[in-house]
Amino acid sequence: MVRSIVTLMTDFGLKDSYVAEMKGVILGICPSAEIVDVSHEIEKFNTRMGAYVLASASPYFPKDTINVAVVDPRVGTERRGLCIETARGYFIGPDNGVLVLAARVQGIKHVRVIKNAKFLLPNVSHTFHGRDVFAPVAAHLANGVNPSDIGPEKGKMVVPEFAKVVKDKNRVTGEILHVDGFGNVVTNIAEKDIEEVGASQGLSLKMNGVQERLRFCKTYGEVEVGEPLALIGSHGYFEISVNQGDASKDFGFKIGDKITFCL
Amino acid sequence: MVRSIVTLMTDFGLKDSYVAEMKGVILGICPSAEIVDVSHEIEKFNTRMGAYVLASASPYFPKDTINVAVVDPRVGTERRGLCIETARGYFIGPDNGVLVLAARVQGIKHVRVIKNAKFLLPNVSHTFHGRDVFAPVAAHLANGVNPSDIGPEKGKMVVPEFAKVVKDKNRVTGEILHVDGFGNVVTNIAEKDIEEVGASQGLSLKMNGVQERLRFCKTYGEVEVGEPLALIGSHGYFEISVNQGDASKDFGFKIGDKITFCL
Amino acid sequence: MVRSIVTLMTDFGLKDSYVAEMKGVILGICPSAEIVDVSHEIEKFNTRMGAYVLASASPYFPKDTINVAVVDPRVGTERRGLCIETARGYFIGPDNGVLVLAARVQGIKHVRVIKNAKFLLPNVSHTFHGRDVFAPVAAHLANGVNPSDIGPEKGKMVVPEFAKVVKDKNRVTGEILHVDGFGNVVTNIAEKDIEEVGASQGLSLKMNGVQERLRFCKTYGEVEVGEPLALIGSHGYFEISVNQGDASKDFGFKIGDKITFCL
Repeated sequence: MVRSIVTLMTDFGLKDSYVAEMKGVILGICPSAEIVDVSHEIEKFNTRMGAYVLASASPYFPKDTINVAVVDPRVGTERRGLCIETARGYFIGPDNGVLVLAARVQGIKHVRVIKNAKFLLPNVSHTFHGRDVFAPVAAHLANGVNPSDIGPEKGKMVVPEFAKVVKDKNRVTGEILHVDGFGNVVTNIAEKDIEEVGASQGLSLKMNGVQERLRFCKTYGEVEVGEPLALIGSHGYFEISVNQGDASKDFGFKIGDKITFCL
Repeated sequence: MVRSIVTLMTDFGLKDSYVAEMKGVILGICPSAEIVDVSHEIEKFNTRMGAYVLASASPYFPKDTINVAVVDPRVGTERRGLCIETARGYFIGPDNGVLVLAARVQGIKHVRVIKNAKFLLPNVSHTFHGRDVFAPVAAHLANGVNPSDIGPEKGKMVVPEFAKVVKDKNRVTGEILHVDGFGNVVTNIAEKDIEEVGASQGLSLKMNGVQERLRFCKTYGEVEVGEPLALIGSHGYFEISVNQGDASKDFGFKIGDKITFCL
Repeated sequence: MVRSIVTLMTDFGLKDSYVAEMKGVILGICPSAEIVDVSHEIEKFNTRMGAYVLASASPYFPKDTINVAVVDPRVGTERRGLCIETARGYFIGPDNGVLVLAARVQGIKHVRVIKNAKFLLPNVSHTFHGRDVFAPVAAHLANGVNPSDIGPEKGKMVVPEFAKVVKDKNRVTGEILHVDGFGNVVTNIAEKDIEEVGASQGLSLKMNGVQERLRFCKTYGEVEVGEPLALIGSHGYFEISVNQGDASKDFGFKIGDKITFCL
């Protein structure tokens, strides 16, 4: 028997029973589902952080994985619920951009609006669609329900906007996408952007009145403990780190800040 | 093969190995068990918060789920361990009230005291019955052991006390049961209490010297970001929230506070 | 079908997608694996705390459990990755001491260096061997790969050093191994050390200029709420606790402090 994998990502935290309620609903509908937590500590209501974390995790899951993502500040309003079918799996959650980055990487085949009440809990609350809408839809897909029965096609969806990466011969500007639990600062500047600017020998960070030369390394341990460095992180993006330290604190960076590097 | 679901709720936190030790014990006895975390971040020793969180989660799990709850400030003293059998499943933990709210909703059939050493670890510590008593009992039940073999019937058990909801034509008074990770303030006032008082158009909160008119909404997004509102939450209780904000901080409310609403 | 258990312990925290990426990799290689979290909240880079937590958890898991531990400040440098085979299972992670305490308890049979690229992800990053090296090796072992195919034998490995326990007739000195989420202070002094010193009636703590007589108890509830006590904890080590309080805060103790007790 093949067990369908259902991943869950939310901003619910782990203190309350909310995540467990979703798992109970899923296992009630599809007892063989293999549920895996992606994160439940997305900053509350931060759909951009959710989009980044989901896009980081989903490439490592097998084909046909069903991903549920609930960062949903407008739950219960007219915002729609989506079931996106890609070439490698499914993404289920609110139509606010949280699903898009991850789904695009896999190649979007269908974007459907969740409509069919047969696949929802009998009483849908106004405040907890994670449990009443998205969890049961995921479980029914895990049971083999035809995704076209979930609801009608919808051409457009809300797309999260990030600052465009701007490059010239001496300079590249991007945005801070994420600060991880180690204080590593992840930008939206990709490895190829750095190569095009020719910064492989190192580069200077200019921001917040600070100018700091950063060595371009392959790993943290190439500089002394406490020293800053730049590297291409494990997801292919340009990162600023401090060896065994916290770059976000040291430089005062936060998610959404624009950031410029010079040769 | 049917996989038995075993849920775990504790105040152990996730830093230490305690929760993993319980899971290791369960899988050693019942390799096919499906273990689901309810929460391990119950406030330490707060059996009332534990009772509320367990009662919130357990209705969403399938029939025959075995629920283990360990918030156990008096572990190793003469306090007894219970195995409660309901019409829908089992609740296992200390006799201090943490199991009762959840078990009652399902209809209690038998309350048994855990006695039979055959179903415990060979060496029961004085400080960690979650691992040495409650986890193995749950795993043996998951294996199909007859619950009447766990121990003898016990008529009475410790029941957590909450303030009674008091209503008259213009006013309803209750207690704050829980503050969730979003800062939503959950009271013990049920939807029908509000209906009887006739407050469906809105109501005033009087507390801590503050008087504030609250709109009675169906969901958070009906008021502006940062504005307070009242609603019936996803578990059927009356809640105070701030749209994309933290009602608990804004109003200075905490668990156990009494709270009064007027027309 | 027997499901192989794979445990995961890291210092990654639960906010980011890192732990989920490891789980995705494991389930992609071995869909039947049963993955259990030990802890992901090891203090960042604290291999000694990791060694203690892993050694606390692993005895409670069944035979043949595969344990992955990633506290890895020198990832991507020349430090080696190990696959330790014991009489009861496997320990996989960096060669920095994090695996050793747990593995020794089970009886080490083979220490192998991870070498065979066939069992790693196709592109091994310089910063995330948890996902690219240790997770896939664990999953291949779970699939039944011969452990001798992982890599060659390596005689020596890095061993974490803790202060030796020093005893005389009136006094025993050790080290603080761990402070748990309750503030319980766990030393490296074992039950037999205490018996040899003859401190079973109680003992005095001398440290940080404080001298405090501690009752030697079997469980927390033997003293009043807020009172300190000494006991043998659930893992067999001598602990200092405060009933329903936080001994670490009250006494100002932290991991690595030396600690002396007198009759």
